[in-house]
Amino acid sequence: MLLRRPKLHLLPDLLPSWAQCRGVFHLGKAGSASELRAARGTWQWREFAVFLRPEVQHTPFTARLLQKGAVMRQERQQSLGWRSPVPEVMGILLGDVQGAGQQPITFLRQVTAISTYPRLLDHPALPLDAKQRAREILANCAGNSIGAYTEPEGIGAVRHSVAQYLEQRDGGVPADPNNVYLMNGTSNAMSIIFNLLIDRSRSRRTGLLVPVPCGEVSWHTISMLGGVVLPYHLDAEQGWEVTAQELRRVVEEGRGHCQPMALCVTNPGIPTGHVMSRRCMEHVIRFAVDEGLLILAKEGHPSDIYSGSCQQQTFKKVLSEMGPKYAGVLELVSFNSVSSGHIGESGARGCFMEVLNMSPAVQMYIGLMLAAFDSASVTAQIAIDVATRPPQPGHPSYPLFQAEKRESLRMLAEQARLTEGMLNTIPGISCAVINSGTFAFPRIELPDGAREAAEAMNLRLDTFYSHRLLMDTGCLLAPGGDFGLQDGPWHFRMNFLLPLDKLKLTLEKIMEFHRKFMAEFS
Amino acid sequence: MLLRRPKLHLLPDLLPSWAQCRGVFHLGKAGSASELRAARGTWQWREFAVFLRPEVQHTPFTARLLQKGAVMRQERQQSLGWRSPVPEVMGILLGDVQGAGQQPITFLRQVTAISTYPRLLDHPALPLDAKQRAREILANCAGNSIGAYTEPEGIGAVRHSVAQYLEQRDGGVPADPNNVYLMNGTSNAMSIIFNLLIDRSRSRRTGLLVPVPCGEVSWHTISMLGGVVLPYHLDAEQGWEVTAQELRRVVEEGRGHCQPMALCVTNPGIPTGHVMSRRCMEHVIRFAVDEGLLILAKEGHPSDIYSGSCQQQTFKKVLSEMGPKYAGVLELVSFNSVSSGHIGESGARGCFMEVLNMSPAVQMYIGLMLAAFDSASVTAQIAIDVATRPPQPGHPSYPLFQAEKRESLRMLAEQARLTEGMLNTIPGISCAVINSGTFAFPRIELPDGAREAAEAMNLRLDTFYSHRLLMDTGCLLAPGGDFGLQDGPWHFRMNFLLPLDKLKLTLEKIMEFHRKFMAEFS
Repeated sequence: MLLRRPKLHLLPDLLPSWAQCRGVFHLGKAGSASELRAARGTWQWREFAVFLRPEVQHTPFTARLLQKGAVMRQERQQSLGWRSPVPEVMGILLGDVQGAGQQPITFLRQVTAISTYPRLLDHPALPLDAKQRAREILANCAGNSIGAYTEPEGIGAVRHSVAQYLEQRDGGVPADPNNVYLMNGTSNAMSIIFNLLIDRSRSRRTGLLVPVPCGEVSWHTISMLGGVVLPYHLDAEQGWEVTAQELRRVVEEGRGHCQPMALCVTNPGIPTGHVMSRRCMEHVIRFAVDEGLLILAKEGHPSDIYSGSCQQQTFKKVLSEMGPKYAGVLELVSFNSVSSGHIGESGARGCFMEVLNMSPAVQMYIGLMLAAFDSASVTAQIAIDVATRPPQPGHPSYPLFQAEKRESLRMLAEQARLTEGMLNTIPGISCAVINSGTFAFPRIELPDGAREAAEAMNLRLDTFYSHRLLMDTGCLLAPGGDFGLQDGPWHFRMNFLLPLDKLKLTLEKIMEFHRKFMAEFS
Repeated sequence: MLLRRPKLHLLPDLLPSWAQCRGVFHLGKAGSASELRAARGTWQWREFAVFLRPEVQHTPFTARLLQKGAVMRQERQQSLGWRSPVPEVMGILLGDVQGAGQQPITFLRQVTAISTYPRLLDHPALPLDAKQRAREILANCAGNSIGAYTEPEGIGAVRHSVAQYLEQRDGGVPADPNNVYLMNGTSNAMSIIFNLLIDRSRSRRTGLLVPVPCGEVSWHTISMLGGVVLPYHLDAEQGWEVTAQELRRVVEEGRGHCQPMALCVTNPGIPTGHVMSRRCMEHVIRFAVDEGLLILAKEGHPSDIYSGSCQQQTFKKVLSEMGPKYAGVLELVSFNSVSSGHIGESGARGCFMEVLNMSPAVQMYIGLMLAAFDSASVTAQIAIDVATRPPQPGHPSYPLFQAEKRESLRMLAEQARLTEGMLNTIPGISCAVINSGTFAFPRIELPDGAREAAEAMNLRLDTFYSHRLLMDTGCLLAPGGDFGLQDGPWHFRMNFLLPLDKLKLTLEKIMEFHRKFMAEFS
C-alpha cells in the first residue's frame, strides 16, 4: 500500500543535496516496504545501518546522525530481547557532557526552576541571588510567565546580559544588545543565516567556504538550502591552522562555478579541538575583507579552554584591534552555544549570535525569520542569561558556581590528558594536545594491506577500521572521513566523556585492537 | 560604510518569496543607512512601520510579524521618552494566553521545576505525583539530566505518552510511538515537512494547498522553500467550511503550473475559530485520496473546545472510520501544539506531530532532519508529556489540575461570549459563534465612500480601517487581508485575551470608532 503511492518517498528534494547519505537511500530504496518494516524496531535498523550492512557505503554525516542516540537506545533494544552482534557499545561517539555525567551548574538550574514555578521564591533552601535572578527574568516576561511568547529576537534583558558579557569577554570592545539574537540551537541559528545568504533564484549559485575537518552539520544544511559548499582544508601539520594560501585556492576555484559569499570558521575547532592563533585569525580576517566575504564564526567561550597552554581570542576582539579598515567593514556573525564547556546544557538547545557591521535591513529580516520560525524557548534563554551573567564575588551562589565550573573543567582536562597520553603510546597513532571540547582527533597510520579488505566491503579505509573496531570491541567512534577527510592521512574522532576508569579501559581496548589490526594487515 | 558593501542587504534570496512583505523592503530599500539607523530604536521603526508610514503598503504577514512583541516593547519605548502618536495600545493583536494572564497548569510547572533541579524531590511542599513524574522523565534522560541531548525524535517515554494520549483521544484508534515526533514549535515542525515535500530540483514546482483565511506562517514558509502556495477559500457563508468544489477548482488550476502535492488544513480554524464538521472532513479526505495529496493538519486538542455547541473530531479518527480504502492509503501528518488552550505554554515552544501511512524511508529522513536541525528542548518535551498525560483521578494533583483547566476554559468562553455579543450589537459587524482559540474574526461592512481615502494612502480598505482604528483608539488588530482575504467582504481579527472590564472597554472603543467611521464615509 505504501509503495503504491510512495509520494514522499520519491519526492524529497533533499535527495540530491543529501546525496552524501547514499547509504541511507540505498537502504531506503533497495529495501521493499515489508523488509523495511521488518527491520524497523530492531537494533540495527537505524543506529548501525551503516556499520552493519557493509554493502552500504559509509559516508560522512550519516553515521553520526544515524548513531546519535544509539547508545541511549541500546538498553531499550536489549529489553526487546534482540541480541546485538557486537559487545557493549562504549559511548565515545558524541560529545554530550551532562549525558556523560557532568554535573549541571546549580545556580542555572535553580534560576530555571524558580522561574518555572515561582512559588519556589518562598522556598527557604534556595539562595537569594537565584531568587533575585528569577524575579528579574519573570519581570521581563509578558504576564510574568515563562509560558508567554517572548520577543522574536529574545528577551530584551537577556540580550542585554549577553552584550555585557561580550564586552567583558573582549576587554571592553562595545557590544550592542540589538545585535544579539537568542536562538534554539546553533544549527538552527546557522540555517537562518544560510537562508539569508543563499540565493536560489540566480543561476550563479552561492558558495560558502567550510573547513575540513568540520564537525558541524553546516555542510549539509548549505547543500540542502541550495548553496555550494567550498571545502578548505585545515593544515594538520600546523596544528590545524587555516592558511591564506588554501583559502585563496578554494575561492579562486570556486569562482569558476559559483559566487563565494561567506567563510565559516570554528574556533576552537571541532572535532580537532585546536585553538586558532591570533596570527591566523588576522589572516582570515584580511582575506575575508579583501575577497568581500562574510565571516560566520562558531566560537567557544574562552573560559572553557582548559589546557593552560593557550588562550582563545574571539574574532570580534581581533577585528577590533585591526583598525577601521577591517573593523568597520567586515560583516561578522558569531555563534555561541550553551551546550558545551562548564555550562554543558545540551538539552536546553540555547544559542546566541552576535552580528557586526550588518545592514539594519538585514537585521530586520533576521527578526522576521525568528518570528516566523519560532524564537528560542524561554528556558533556553534563561540558560543563556546565566551562562553570560554568572554569580559575582560576594553573591551567595558565587563560591559554589566557581567550584562547579572549576571541577567540570578540571575533569575535562584530566580526561583529555589521559586520552592524549594513552593514544600517544600506541605505535602508529599520534594525538595533539587537546585544548578544549570533548574530542580527541588523533592521526592513525593504517596499513596498505587493509585497503583490499576495505575495498572488498566497499568501505573507505578508516571506515573499515572503525567498523572492525566496533565489531571487535564495542567502541563506536567516528572515522575522519565523516568530517570531510576523504583520503589519508587517516584520523578518527572519539569523545572522552567517560569516568576515568572506563575511559582507561576503552583506550586499552583501542590500543589492543589497533595492534591486532596492524598485525593482521601489515 | 554599510551601504558600500551591502552584500547581505542585496542578497537575501528571500526577497522574491517574501515579496508580500513589500512594506518592509520598501522601508529597507528607500531609506538610506543613516535614515534607518536614526529610525532604529524609535518606537515606530519596526513595530508600526506598516501602520505609521501610510505610503508603505500594508500587506499580509508583515504587520503580524512586525508587531509581534509591539505591545511588550511599548513600555521600553516609553522609558526612552519617545512619545507615540497613538493612545495606549490595547494588546488585541496576538493570542498569547499566559502573556495575557492565564495561570499556568501548576502540575506542569512543578514537574518541570523538579526535573530541572532534582533536589526539589526533597521539598515537602511539592506533590508526590509531580515528583514521580519528574523521576520518570529523569530516568529517560542520559546521565539523568535534562541537560543531556535527547534522541532526535524526542524522549522515547514521552513519545509513548503522546501515543497513549492519541489512542484515548481517538477512541482507541491505535497510535504507534514511532510515528510520533517531538519538536520545537509548529512552524519548525511544518517547515521540516515542507522541506521534505518541496522539490526545488524539478522544473515543475511543488504546490501546496493552503486555506484562506489562514493564520499560520505556512504560506510564507512554503514560498521561502521554493514551493507554490495554492490558496483555497473557506466558505464564510457555511461557517468557514472547506468545499470540495473549491478544492477541485484550485487543484485543477494549480496543475497548469505546478504539481499539487499536499493539502494544509487547520482545525479548529485560525483565525476563524470554526470547527470542521465531520461531513466536511470526510470530503477533504476523499478529495485528498482521489487526487493523491497528503494532508497536513494543524489540529487543536478536542478538550479545548469551550463553546459546548460542537465537538472537534480529528482527521485520524474520521479517517479510521472511512474504511481501508482511505485509512490504509492517506498520508497524514497532524501537528499539535502546547501553546494554546488550557495548557497555553507558548514560551515552551513545544509541538508534537504524528505521521500516518508514511514510508519508513521518509520517516528515517525526518529523524535525520531532526538530528541536523536540533531536536526539541527537554523542557518543551516535558510540557508535551504533561499535556498528554495529565494527573488522573486519585492522584494528588488531579483536583487542582481539573480546577485550573476548567477555569482557563471558562475564562476563554466568557471572553468569547462577551466579544461575540458586543460585536454583534454594532450595526455592520457580524461575528459567528467562537468555539475555540482566542480570536474573533467578524465580518465588517465598510462604506464605499472610504475607498477613495484608502486608495489615496495606497492602502486596502480593511487596512485603512485598522490604521484609523489604531490612530484613533490605540486598538491594534489585524485586518482580514493579513490572512489572505484580499477583497471584500471585509473582516478583522482581534484576540480577546483581556480582563473582562478592559475587554469591554476595548469593544466599546471599537464600537464608537466604527460608528464614527461609518458616519464619516457613508
